[in-house]
Amino acid sequence: MSSNAALPPRTGADLLCETLLAHGVDHCFANPGTSEMHFVAALDRQPRMRCVLGLAEGVVTGAADGYARMAGRPACTLLHTGPGLANGLANLHNAKRAHTPIVNIVGDHATYHLEHDAPLASDIESLARPMSHWVGRTPSADGVGAAAATAVREAVTPPGRIATLILAADHAWSASAAPVPAHSPPPTAPLPAAAELDRAAAALKRRRGTVLLLAGRTLRADGLAVAARIAAATGCRLLAPQANARVERGLGRVMIDRVPYVVDKALAMLADTASLVLVGAKAPVGFFAYPGKPGSMLPAGCEVLTAARPDEDGLGALHELATRVGAGSDAVAAAAKPLFATKRDLPLPTGALTASTLAQAVVARLPEGAIVCDESVSSGRDFFPMSWHAAPHDYLQITGGAIGLGIPLATGAALGAPGRRVVTLQADGSAMYTLQGLWTQARERLPVVTVIFSNRRYAILHGEYVQTGAGTPGANARQLFNLDDPALDWVALARGMGVGAERAETAERFTDLFGAALEHEGPFLIEAVI
Amino acid sequence: MSSNAALPPRTGADLLCETLLAHGVDHCFANPGTSEMHFVAALDRQPRMRCVLGLAEGVVTGAADGYARMAGRPACTLLHTGPGLANGLANLHNAKRAHTPIVNIVGDHATYHLEHDAPLASDIESLARPMSHWVGRTPSADGVGAAAATAVREAVTPPGRIATLILAADHAWSASAAPVPAHSPPPTAPLPAAAELDRAAAALKRRRGTVLLLAGRTLRADGLAVAARIAAATGCRLLAPQANARVERGLGRVMIDRVPYVVDKALAMLADTASLVLVGAKAPVGFFAYPGKPGSMLPAGCEVLTAARPDEDGLGALHELATRVGAGSDAVAAAAKPLFATKRDLPLPTGALTASTLAQAVVARLPEGAIVCDESVSSGRDFFPMSWHAAPHDYLQITGGAIGLGIPLATGAALGAPGRRVVTLQADGSAMYTLQGLWTQARERLPVVTVIFSNRRYAILHGEYVQTGAGTPGANARQLFNLDDPALDWVALARGMGVGAERAETAERFTDLFGAALEHEGPFLIEAVI
Repeated sequence: MSSNAALPPRTGADLLCETLLAHGVDHCFANPGTSEMHFVAALDRQPRMRCVLGLAEGVVTGAADGYARMAGRPACTLLHTGPGLANGLANLHNAKRAHTPIVNIVGDHATYHLEHDAPLASDIESLARPMSHWVGRTPSADGVGAAAATAVREAVTPPGRIATLILAADHAWSASAAPVPAHSPPPTAPLPAAAELDRAAAALKRRRGTVLLLAGRTLRADGLAVAARIAAATGCRLLAPQANARVERGLGRVMIDRVPYVVDKALAMLADTASLVLVGAKAPVGFFAYPGKPGSMLPAGCEVLTAARPDEDGLGALHELATRVGAGSDAVAAAAKPLFATKRDLPLPTGALTASTLAQAVVARLPEGAIVCDESVSSGRDFFPMSWHAAPHDYLQITGGAIGLGIPLATGAALGAPGRRVVTLQADGSAMYTLQGLWTQARERLPVVTVIFSNRRYAILHGEYVQTGAGTPGANARQLFNLDDPALDWVALARGMGVGAERAETAERFTDLFGAALEHEGPFLIEAVI
Repeated sequence: MSSNAALPPRTGADLLCETLLAHGVDHCFANPGTSEMHFVAALDRQPRMRCVLGLAEGVVTGAADGYARMAGRPACTLLHTGPGLANGLANLHNAKRAHTPIVNIVGDHATYHLEHDAPLASDIESLARPMSHWVGRTPSADGVGAAAATAVREAVTPPGRIATLILAADHAWSASAAPVPAHSPPPTAPLPAAAELDRAAAALKRRRGTVLLLAGRTLRADGLAVAARIAAATGCRLLAPQANARVERGLGRVMIDRVPYVVDKALAMLADTASLVLVGAKAPVGFFAYPGKPGSMLPAGCEVLTAARPDEDGLGALHELATRVGAGSDAVAAAAKPLFATKRDLPLPTGALTASTLAQAVVARLPEGAIVCDESVSSGRDFFPMSWHAAPHDYLQITGGAIGLGIPLATGAALGAPGRRVVTLQADGSAMYTLQGLWTQARERLPVVTVIFSNRRYAILHGEYVQTGAGTPGANARQLFNLDDPALDWVALARGMGVGAERAETAERFTDLFGAALEHEGPFLIEAVI
């Protein structure tokens, strides 16, 4: 009998962990169940894997999104069978729209147990497919390595994909001596075809009503700087989609406006567009349809040119366009003052706390290098234009309209960019979907300041209701829109999860609290009653 | 111009509300979004429809489950596009396993907007199908009525089904003068074929190792009384599945045991079974598979007879079996003392608060007619055997293993059985999935007492981990199982949502608090630190 006899054998689950680590995945956002116990046991044998618990799966998937947006590489999730995956789908939907790479590991029953239709059994593939680019199943314990390597490769395929691997319990617990698949460099995004770039450049050179719509990787400072050179050379307008995974904004960076959420405003902004050149973006459409209003936000006859698809090299495409239009140097572009955000005296707000004075305080106090996670919905619309003049920061948004992303996103972003301050601008109604994420922030001691816009209603629905022409909300509609009976006490909710919290009802108090929160070790929440 | 010119026209959404009401659906559990605004406007014109807001969709669907289990007829849900449905799927999974009738209304984009792949678009059918028996789409504004009538009919088809109707925004907002479809009586469950009943009766009459496994409707007092007559006549054993939608229990009722969750215990309990007669039940299988353990809980050679399928008339089948085996009267059965729960002196517990002393206090204090919603997971295993001697009550369980049902289920049960007290036995880890339901309890002033078993860990996973043979949990496993860093403060969490709350750390304190909470108007929560 060997001296190792008491050690458990290496299992398929060990092979999974080894493969994930070998392929650069070292964060596991998890909410495990019984069918994942052998996976957890394997994680226990891999201290290099950082395991982060979410107390609801929307926290798990939203945090994996935030992590990858900042770290630039995927985390894995650990989800418990179909219902566990289902709970995480809404934030996977947002991540999919953000082109975030994520590797989901969904534990399932042992293969031979499926025929019994045990209580937790369900059609996991049918649930996974709408929010995944790739769905696979482990074929055997020995095959777990290749399946995991494929999942990681799918996830990092440009521009970033959701890969869901269903892990059978018996493949996790059975012994395997199979080697870890070799890591190969991830696929890179190709440059667009020259003919497409030529057509786009020709439109830009016509200098007549051309909009350059930038998305994805091009919204970082370097991409925006190239876009500014093109704009300075051709007079084109620069725009970004309404919602973006990550934009580098603030002082010294290019002030790029977004297509508005409100249909009439979007139509007005794009009314004079003769040519739309897409770089990693899709042509703008209405977030929702409204009776009698168009679905496309483009004027009739507007020409649409695709300089780069989302899965092509947008940054490379911008450089190619700059060359083709004869764009000047950075200095030339920088001289085009209106393009770059310059220093302004940002006064501290006084008096009533409103969405606007709150934004003023955040902009004035935001530390350099902060990460702003914005799920402020209707209340945060003042922040975007003001924050061009804030310190340089990363700006992360909810991308798929599935509310409940803000708190988890911030949690993951803090883990993906250690040492940086995170500020969450969070609508109260949306915050309630995934408030459990505050507990993870406390557990992991994350430097996240959550600002709750506490207006005690689904404010956006009040507005949308009026749009229907049904008049002012009656008893049933108020019952469905208002959160004031009882009012949510966010200070109590945060403290209940171990997060320090205070309430602000004036601009001065908010400004003081926000400044103090930024000095606070670990997470802090401010309920801003607006 | 008519004097009605200012009134909005009757829409497809109005037709939907009228149809739901005409077909007996008058509770709408909702979390709406923009694409459902015209539906909300129509609800506003129907004060007979009670609209109940859930601040996360898991609350919405879990409450619809609890409502129907008590009211005996379906509520509808109102969910916002694919992600809103996704958030509600886990509790729909439980409801599907419970055979609960539910009509889901899922709002979708306008039909002509789908081609734009707007941010919230997803494959709703693929998401809905695993947790629905029926999925349909509205065909037009005029067709909304027939579609809704079909959905209700599907939902009330025995033994109860999940029907999901996808409502296109343009069908909701377009004018319709179509009539409300006539209400026809719901389909009834047929009696099983005589040959099946004969075979089952023959097995019972052999009087040798026969188990009568009862599920569904037969677990109410009347069904159990018939089963007791059969047991008294044939000596068969009565059993129920591990998890059940609703059992009538307590003093004077038949003491029916359940198949244990733990595989070895289930195997031991069923070891001597020669014949298993199913009445609305499925043959028992392991909740999960474990290495080297069987999936079926039945001994080799056990004969399985189906006296009634779940969609057949189980109560009628029991009466038929009673006749065939020559069962005596109720009085004869009642004389068979061990079958019926009799009055016992239930002492109030003292000293340390444990899962056991807690159960003792609940059993002693439970008011007659209470509804117990049990999601206590591993901590609540003492309650079931003790509560045979509690006052008569309804006992509702989590049926599909998707945790996060308890608080929503209680919320809906209170609305489905007005005037009755509801007691939720709630594990802390599971409570965190859908704690938002406490707010709905406060808003609706529901008489629900929530008891949180606060052991600050996923206790069941500690046990399951040890089963894997991996030894004691290491750093990563503890990180995924323990909820003690920081400890959740349930008193703060409940108060943050407007629910009164206190903490108990001794049996005496718990007993006092529980008694007071039962007198309290509206909801109350007790954090029981065990």
